[in-house]
Amino acid sequence: MTAIEPLQVPRGLKGVVITDTEVGDVRGAEGFYHYRQYSAVDLAASRPLEDVWQLLVDGHLPTSVAERSRFREEVAPLRRLPPALAEVLPAIARAGEPLDGLRTALSLAAEAEGMRPTIDLSPAERRADALLLCAVTPTVLCALHRLRNGREPIGPDDELGWAANYLWMLSGRRPPAAHAAALGQYLVSTIDHGFNASTFTARVVASTGADLGACVVAAVGALSGPLHGGAPSRALALLDTMGGVDVLDLADPIARVDAVVRPMIEAGDKIMGFGHAVYRTDDPRSLLLRDLARRLGGRQAELGELVEQRVIELLAELKPGRGLRTNVEFYAGIVMDACGVPRSMFTPTFASSRVIGWCANVLEQAADNKIIRPSARYVGPPAPQPVPALG
Amino acid sequence: MTAIEPLQVPRGLKGVVITDTEVGDVRGAEGFYHYRQYSAVDLAASRPLEDVWQLLVDGHLPTSVAERSRFREEVAPLRRLPPALAEVLPAIARAGEPLDGLRTALSLAAEAEGMRPTIDLSPAERRADALLLCAVTPTVLCALHRLRNGREPIGPDDELGWAANYLWMLSGRRPPAAHAAALGQYLVSTIDHGFNASTFTARVVASTGADLGACVVAAVGALSGPLHGGAPSRALALLDTMGGVDVLDLADPIARVDAVVRPMIEAGDKIMGFGHAVYRTDDPRSLLLRDLARRLGGRQAELGELVEQRVIELLAELKPGRGLRTNVEFYAGIVMDACGVPRSMFTPTFASSRVIGWCANVLEQAADNKIIRPSARYVGPPAPQPVPALG
Repeated sequence: MTAIEPLQVPRGLKGVVITDTEVGDVRGAEGFYHYRQYSAVDLAASRPLEDVWQLLVDGHLPTSVAERSRFREEVAPLRRLPPALAEVLPAIARAGEPLDGLRTALSLAAEAEGMRPTIDLSPAERRADALLLCAVTPTVLCALHRLRNGREPIGPDDELGWAANYLWMLSGRRPPAAHAAALGQYLVSTIDHGFNASTFTARVVASTGADLGACVVAAVGALSGPLHGGAPSRALALLDTMGGVDVLDLADPIARVDAVVRPMIEAGDKIMGFGHAVYRTDDPRSLLLRDLARRLGGRQAELGELVEQRVIELLAELKPGRGLRTNVEFYAGIVMDACGVPRSMFTPTFASSRVIGWCANVLEQAADNKIIRPSARYVGPPAPQPVPALG
Repeated sequence: MTAIEPLQVPRGLKGVVITDTEVGDVRGAEGFYHYRQYSAVDLAASRPLEDVWQLLVDGHLPTSVAERSRFREEVAPLRRLPPALAEVLPAIARAGEPLDGLRTALSLAAEAEGMRPTIDLSPAERRADALLLCAVTPTVLCALHRLRNGREPIGPDDELGWAANYLWMLSGRRPPAAHAAALGQYLVSTIDHGFNASTFTARVVASTGADLGACVVAAVGALSGPLHGGAPSRALALLDTMGGVDVLDLADPIARVDAVVRPMIEAGDKIMGFGHAVYRTDDPRSLLLRDLARRLGGRQAELGELVEQRVIELLAELKPGRGLRTNVEFYAGIVMDACGVPRSMFTPTFASSRVIGWCANVLEQAADNKIIRPSARYVGPPAPQPVPALG
C-alpha cells in the first residue's frame, strides 16, 4: 500500500475499531453486554440507577452506604431546572415533541450554566458539567411532557430515588414500589450499549474540545434519527394492530396473530420488536424485560408473551436460519406502559438514562483526546473548471 | 486478516476515506480547494454568495439572471425569524455567546418548523429544510449579537444581497459597497472546506436519518470546539499584543515583532494564524484574504503584512523545514475587522456561511445513506466480574 492509496474501510465504518474504551462493551455472539467490568443485567438486578451512574462517571460502584449517600446528595440539587431554562421551557414545549425539546433545553442549560470547552477544563470541572446534564435531563423531559399536556411541571423530590422521582415528576403521583423498581431496572439496562450512533456522535463532538453541552445536544439529535433510536411505541403498536389485550379473549388468539403477522413477514416488512443488528442470540435486555413484565403482570404482558412466542415461530418458518428473536423494544414498551409511562415518552425516557452513557464516553474522550476527522473521496466532475459567466 | 481481527485504522481516522462526495475537496499539496467542480477562490472572485449557495445545495450555478432571481426570491422570506423563535431569542441571548445561542436557536427553529426525519422526506422537502436553516442563521446571529448589546434586532432587507444584508442586520447601517463585497468574498471562501470535524459531525447525525435541524445543531456544537473552529480573533489578538497599529509608528517595528514573537516560538507556543493541518503550501484562503485586506486598506492591513512577513522569517529561522505560512485565520480577522464585524462575531460570522456546506453534505448523505457507526475496543478489566454487595 503506497502513501497516496487511501485506506479502504467498510461503508459506514461497520466493524472498524476507532478507539479504545473502558466504559463497556457488547458481545453480540454471547448475548452479553457490560458497563465497566460488570454485566449490565446483573447491575440492573442488584443496584439502583444512581449506583450505576456513579460507576459510569467515576469508574467504580459505591462501596458503602455513606459513599452512595454522598453521590446522591451531590446530584440532588442538580436535578432542579436552572431559572433561565424554567422561564423558556413553556415555549420550548409548545414548539415540539419532548425529545426535540430536550435538545433545545440542554443546549440552553449548557449556555446558562456557562459550560466551557472540555479542553479548557480540569477533569473535576468536566465531571461537574456531566453530572449536571445527566441530573437535569429527567426533570426537563417530565416538565416538557406536562407542559405539552397543559399541566404545571413538578419539581424533583429529594426523598425519592431516581426512578420513583421520574414517575413522580411525570404523573404527580407517588408510584407503587413495583413500578419504580421495574422502571429503574429497565433504565439501568439502557444507560449504555457499546459504540452506538449517538455515543459515537457525542465522542466526535467531544474530540473537537467542545463543551459537554455541545456533545450531549448532538447525541440527542442522533438518537432522534429513526435508524438509531429504538421505537418501543412501534412494538406496542403491533399488539394494538392485532386488537390489543382483547385478543386474549378470542377462541383462537394464535389465529389472530397469524392473520396479522404472516402477511407482514411474507411482504418482507420488518416486524417491530424482533431482530437486532448485533445480537445473534437472545438480546439480554429483552430477557430482563420479559422477566420484569411477568412480575408486573397484567394482560398486556400476557399478550406479549403469547405474541412473542408465535412471531418467533412464524419467523423461523418464513425466514429460516435467521434466528430472529425479540429485541429490547418489544418488552420495553410493555414494561413502560405497565409502569404508567405514556407512549409519547418511551423514547425520551430511554434518553433520560442514555445521557449517562454519553457523558461517560465524553469524559473518556476528553481525558485522552485526538480529533476524530476522517476523509472523503471527491468523485464529482474534475476540478477546476472555469466559472461560467452569467448568461 | 481473519474475521475476528479488527481493521486497524489511524487514531482519529486521519486519512481514512469513509465516503464519496461530490460537494468538494481540499488538495493540500497544491494549495487548492473547490466546491463542486469550481475553485472556491475563483467563485469568491466572480459570484455572489447566493449563487454559490445554490451551487452547493442544487449542484449547479445559476446560468441566467432570471434563475438567480428565482433563488433569491425563494430564500428571502426564509430569512425572517419564525415567531416561536423571535419570542424566545432575548432569553437565549442572555444565556450565552452568539455561537452557543445559535445552537439553541436552530434547535428551537427546527422544532417550531416541525422538521421531520430526513429519512421520511422527499429530496424537495429535505432541500426546503436546508434552505430554511441556512437562510435564518445570519438573522439569528445578528439578532443575538444586538440583543446581547442591549439593542433591538433588525430584520432582513430583501433589497440587499447576502453580505450587505448581514452587515445591515448587524449594525443597522447600510454598509459601504467595498465592505459588503469583501465580506461576501470571505464568506464564499468559508462555505466548505473538505471533510472537517463539523461537516463530519453533520453527516454522522444525518446517517441516523434525523431531521436537518438535529444535523446542523450538532455541527454548530462541533464548530464551537477549540480544536476545530478557527479563531480569527486570536490572530488579531497577536497584533494587539505587539501594540496594535501604533507599532507602525515605531522607529523599528520589526524589532517589536521580534520581541513578542521570538520568545513565543522558542517556547514552542503555536503562533495563531500560522500553520495548517492540511496545506503544505500557501493556504489559498489566506492569499484571497490578504488581497481583500490590501484593497480595504487601513493601518491594520499594513501592520498585518509587516507582521506576516516577519513571522514567516522567524518561523523559517527557528522551525526550519516546516514551511509554516499564514492560514485563513490571520487575514480573516483583519478583513472582518475592516468590514465592521466585531471580534465577538468572528466565529459566528464564519458559521453563517459554513452552515451552507453542512447542509450540502447532509443532503448528499441523506440521498444515499448508510448509518455511520464504527466500533470501539474494550480495554478495561475483564468482564463479567460479580457485582459486589454494598459494604
